[in-house]
Amino acid sequence: MRIALDAMGGDYAPEAIIKGALLAAEQLEKEDEILLIGQEEVVHSLLKEYGYTGQNIKVVNATQVIGMAEHPTKALSQKTDSSIAVGYGMLKAQQADAFCSAGNTGAMLVGAMFSVKTIEGIIRPTIAGFVPKLSGGFGVILDVGANAECKPEVLEQFGETGSIYAKYVLGIENPKVGLMNLGEEESKGTVVTQAAHQRLKNNPNVNFVGNLEGRDLFNDKADVIVCDGYTGNIIIKMAESIYEIMHEKNIKDPFFDNFNYETAGGSPILGINGNAVIGHGVSSPLAVSNMVVLAQKMISSKISERFRKNYSV
Amino acid sequence: MRIALDAMGGDYAPEAIIKGALLAAEQLEKEDEILLIGQEEVVHSLLKEYGYTGQNIKVVNATQVIGMAEHPTKALSQKTDSSIAVGYGMLKAQQADAFCSAGNTGAMLVGAMFSVKTIEGIIRPTIAGFVPKLSGGFGVILDVGANAECKPEVLEQFGETGSIYAKYVLGIENPKVGLMNLGEEESKGTVVTQAAHQRLKNNPNVNFVGNLEGRDLFNDKADVIVCDGYTGNIIIKMAESIYEIMHEKNIKDPFFDNFNYETAGGSPILGINGNAVIGHGVSSPLAVSNMVVLAQKMISSKISERFRKNYSV
Repeated sequence: MRIALDAMGGDYAPEAIIKGALLAAEQLEKEDEILLIGQEEVVHSLLKEYGYTGQNIKVVNATQVIGMAEHPTKALSQKTDSSIAVGYGMLKAQQADAFCSAGNTGAMLVGAMFSVKTIEGIIRPTIAGFVPKLSGGFGVILDVGANAECKPEVLEQFGETGSIYAKYVLGIENPKVGLMNLGEEESKGTVVTQAAHQRLKNNPNVNFVGNLEGRDLFNDKADVIVCDGYTGNIIIKMAESIYEIMHEKNIKDPFFDNFNYETAGGSPILGINGNAVIGHGVSSPLAVSNMVVLAQKMISSKISERFRKNYSV
Repeated sequence: MRIALDAMGGDYAPEAIIKGALLAAEQLEKEDEILLIGQEEVVHSLLKEYGYTGQNIKVVNATQVIGMAEHPTKALSQKTDSSIAVGYGMLKAQQADAFCSAGNTGAMLVGAMFSVKTIEGIIRPTIAGFVPKLSGGFGVILDVGANAECKPEVLEQFGETGSIYAKYVLGIENPKVGLMNLGEEESKGTVVTQAAHQRLKNNPNVNFVGNLEGRDLFNDKADVIVCDGYTGNIIIKMAESIYEIMHEKNIKDPFFDNFNYETAGGSPILGINGNAVIGHGVSSPLAVSNMVVLAQKMISSKISERFRKNYSV
């Protein structure tokens, strides 16, 4: 498989990204490739500096860089030779099986919709996050930032797409789906969550277990946590900050260590014609390496095709 | 001061409540009183069983009990001699300076609006919660469950009422107010948070510091955290579960110990004509005792009068 990686995206790019690529390369099969996209000389000189001599990493030139704070749509239309534009171009042309970037999140999202585009039947693509479970492993939470506001039918579809992801990528049979809410009773919550609850309850493709409360995030009540991007983003960032505080306090625990953003490595964009993963802006080499591993799992599980099949009419 | 306490409300009532009253009584001034409201014989026999011989605790008879799962409005209208109805009756008649209950949250909220009523000028009363700060002390977060959905002007007013509470009860001069959101930029978030951001920014009575992200909950960015009750409820319950997990794992830390619901003791209802505090359903004696202490602080800070003065035209 060929995994395209944006060498220029992220607060610590290109150094951290290229170091991450080297870590990931050690875990790849002989025939697998990491396609490092960025300013050729810069990337080559760093690979040399880090003493890379292997065959798994190839460099693809992209002369421009989209800054972390740039306006996504404007940047993408103006910087057609930016690493993100080139990466999505390769994904669309099937010169890459996945594209990973720790760069501008908005540009990654807009780039996906402009290039490989949303799968027909998917109402809104979503960014998925991961929540560690006390019983081990991770649950998937969606959305974590692509859609601040969601209609009931969008939340319902998150239950479907989250289930497909949990089954084929996380390997959870008949994943339990819960709706984030402020109470267990189905009458609780906003007009939107009340309507979404009814839709999920009546959806034959979803193993709906009902509403979840803030205290249910880490227990076994659900494998798929459905919420709007506003709520999911707050939950994920709160969990990250808990880890950072523990880290500073030198509190070590296998469960809480999974709150570390580096463990998951990145957040997949679900519902597009291709595999794309968005990394944390502060991505370290370890995070970048795990982002590549996440992309590998998505490729080998054929998750994008499974979405397409599921929604094709 | 006279603090009315619902002896029958909570999963472990009346035992835990009465034990909590005994703990609180030790911290009261000679002239202060705890008015235990509940079925006389039951309360008296337990006070006797626990060996209470002091003068600070008085018993007020209430023959009925509102269950934790009962429909608030129906229960209150039918059970006029329930401990919650009697408690609010005393608060309204100024036979009590505050009313605390770990019972049915909905009944506590509806009871407040039926009896002492919402302060004129307050759009929606709110339930406030507390978030521990790394620098010590607590910030106040509102709403945590009274209003799942909030209009921009309601969120704006939470900024005002939260500031008044932080100043007079928590003793924070010129408290910093932040709006819970998924990004720092004012363009981020939902239509409601975008509009609320502008209102808070232009409100001369609020020291607005802008949007907060999930990672800002425990730092010094803000003393008052503004959000709708859906979001606040999820945040508070997630924090509680973090504490419970650490507790089970026997991880001890002064900061994270403040995530324990027992520390704050309860959640005040802000914006009503009187002091009311809602306790956690599972309230332990320690939590009940701290709920009484919280009520004491609200009484001595004259918080309810301050709200009235602030909104009187």
